[in-house]
Amino acid sequence: MSSKNILIVGTGAIGAFYASRLSTVPGTKVSAICRSNFNAIKKNGIRVTSPIFGDTTFRPTYVFASPDEARDVKSKESLLWDYLIVTTKVLGDPSALAEGLVDGESSLVVFQNGLDIEEPYRKKFPSSAILSAVTRTSVSQPTPGNVEHAHWTRTTIGPYAPDSSSDHGLSQKRVEEFAALLRDAGIPDVDVLSHTGMQFARWHKTAINASINPTSVLAGGCTTQATGVDQELYAHVEGVMREILGLAVKVLGAPLPESLPTIEAVLQGVKEDQSGSRPSMWHDWAAGRKVELEAILGNVLRRARDANAEIPRTQTLYALFRMAQQMRDASPPTS
Amino acid sequence: MSSKNILIVGTGAIGAFYASRLSTVPGTKVSAICRSNFNAIKKNGIRVTSPIFGDTTFRPTYVFASPDEARDVKSKESLLWDYLIVTTKVLGDPSALAEGLVDGESSLVVFQNGLDIEEPYRKKFPSSAILSAVTRTSVSQPTPGNVEHAHWTRTTIGPYAPDSSSDHGLSQKRVEEFAALLRDAGIPDVDVLSHTGMQFARWHKTAINASINPTSVLAGGCTTQATGVDQELYAHVEGVMREILGLAVKVLGAPLPESLPTIEAVLQGVKEDQSGSRPSMWHDWAAGRKVELEAILGNVLRRARDANAEIPRTQTLYALFRMAQQMRDASPPTS
Repeated sequence: MSSKNILIVGTGAIGAFYASRLSTVPGTKVSAICRSNFNAIKKNGIRVTSPIFGDTTFRPTYVFASPDEARDVKSKESLLWDYLIVTTKVLGDPSALAEGLVDGESSLVVFQNGLDIEEPYRKKFPSSAILSAVTRTSVSQPTPGNVEHAHWTRTTIGPYAPDSSSDHGLSQKRVEEFAALLRDAGIPDVDVLSHTGMQFARWHKTAINASINPTSVLAGGCTTQATGVDQELYAHVEGVMREILGLAVKVLGAPLPESLPTIEAVLQGVKEDQSGSRPSMWHDWAAGRKVELEAILGNVLRRARDANAEIPRTQTLYALFRMAQQMRDASPPTS
Repeated sequence: MSSKNILIVGTGAIGAFYASRLSTVPGTKVSAICRSNFNAIKKNGIRVTSPIFGDTTFRPTYVFASPDEARDVKSKESLLWDYLIVTTKVLGDPSALAEGLVDGESSLVVFQNGLDIEEPYRKKFPSSAILSAVTRTSVSQPTPGNVEHAHWTRTTIGPYAPDSSSDHGLSQKRVEEFAALLRDAGIPDVDVLSHTGMQFARWHKTAINASINPTSVLAGGCTTQATGVDQELYAHVEGVMREILGLAVKVLGAPLPESLPTIEAVLQGVKEDQSGSRPSMWHDWAAGRKVELEAILGNVLRRARDANAEIPRTQTLYALFRMAQQMRDASPPTS
């Protein structure tokens, strides 16, 4: 495979983990736009500890403190990125960060959470291939630039090509190429799906995120496991998932792929999660940070309204969380 | 009318307000079981300020510090209460407080919140008339024994006589008598209803309490008005009310009485509430006190399960609040 020039946009735990892996592919150059961890990564690079991949450190080709700096250097040094991997949280329009960083030949790989996050990229970069991706990787970044990979990783990827006018051929080719890159990087489980299959995977992950994450916050910071073990929370979370997956079937116009884990299987996994961990949304909330409410719950609800479908539990969660956020923003905690 | 001997069981703002009014009826003796306000009421009596009734203070015939003390004095002085007016919060079995205080001729007037709260009294005091009552009176008790009545009062009352074996005649007679007592006490709006009419009134109030009260708590302490003004909260609260009133129609086997305000009318009133006040459940929650979760939300849900009916939004609220309470009880706030 020819060498690739890759830019990680938003180098949190997930971005740093993929950066680290991809940097091991011969000839591939990985650069990173960082925010709070800029100084640490600029100085020491990205260190990843993993039970699978061992203890590795790598220095990105470029470390940028902001998209502006990346634009500057790109222009001065005539850089071209084959792949932009976007792993920021979704707050507002997720495509804005990539402006000025994309060329005709660049592909965008969107790992972000929620629904309908690809469309802004397609509008802004009509000649680029948009790759939609979902990851299930247990990673955290306890200190800046230090990433702990807890266990396995699974990457699901497919073209974002919602209508027949899209250039399916290019997108499909790029998906295959990127999947090969991931496999070369030692990432074992990479599933390549069609556009619709990938959208189902995205809806499926959103159903999990939209049910369990806000529930943990609204229920006073309970663990992920509690949402599967407490009988009332189980009934509630199951109900939210059922609403969202039912909507997915309606919106995508196809039956739910049998390859996706059933709600029962997902919640069985939740029940067995002994780690005591809470969803990332709870961590964001507890730290006073913005949460991905609109991308995850808001966009599901807007899809339901477009489809004239009722998703009462999901609407209830959205309404409560939205106001809780307004109340918090109006009087931030003093501690 | 012959003079009546009345005992207020649970002299919070509502109990104190009705005590104060009833004490003005010639010949009527009103006693009170108090808790946190015992010392103040024992010393200074109950003071009520009201735009309708003026500024009045009265001293109850007896002020008891507990049901035990009331039982003691009752036994020593051979007291008989014609009416026991129960206005405590519902935490656990609400009928336990009245044990040993009820004679064959006593009637119980249950002003408490929630569903299915009358049945324990009927089981415990089978020869007593049980009167079910709902009040909409805006009162607060800013300091012990001092009650502020903000504006109008409306009392809805009817017999609790769920089956044909009940002594309808006695219950109906007592309802008429008690309603006359309230009118003699200057309380202008007293609606006397049948058993089913009264149950609809109770379900209707429960629909309001079960939707708005936990919503304010879970949405970070928003005002009552916000639940009607914010569009997403409006859709949510309306949905919860619709679920509960739909269940009431199913459970009671009759159409919703047209005399009850529509959901739209209720929420119009909520929208116009400029007072900035929050539901009492929020005040209880914020002060670290127990809330009436089971009587209000839990009992609705149990009725739905008995009737094999789905009330998804209500179940979601219940599941979230129940866990939030568990989380709070597990680590009480340090402040």
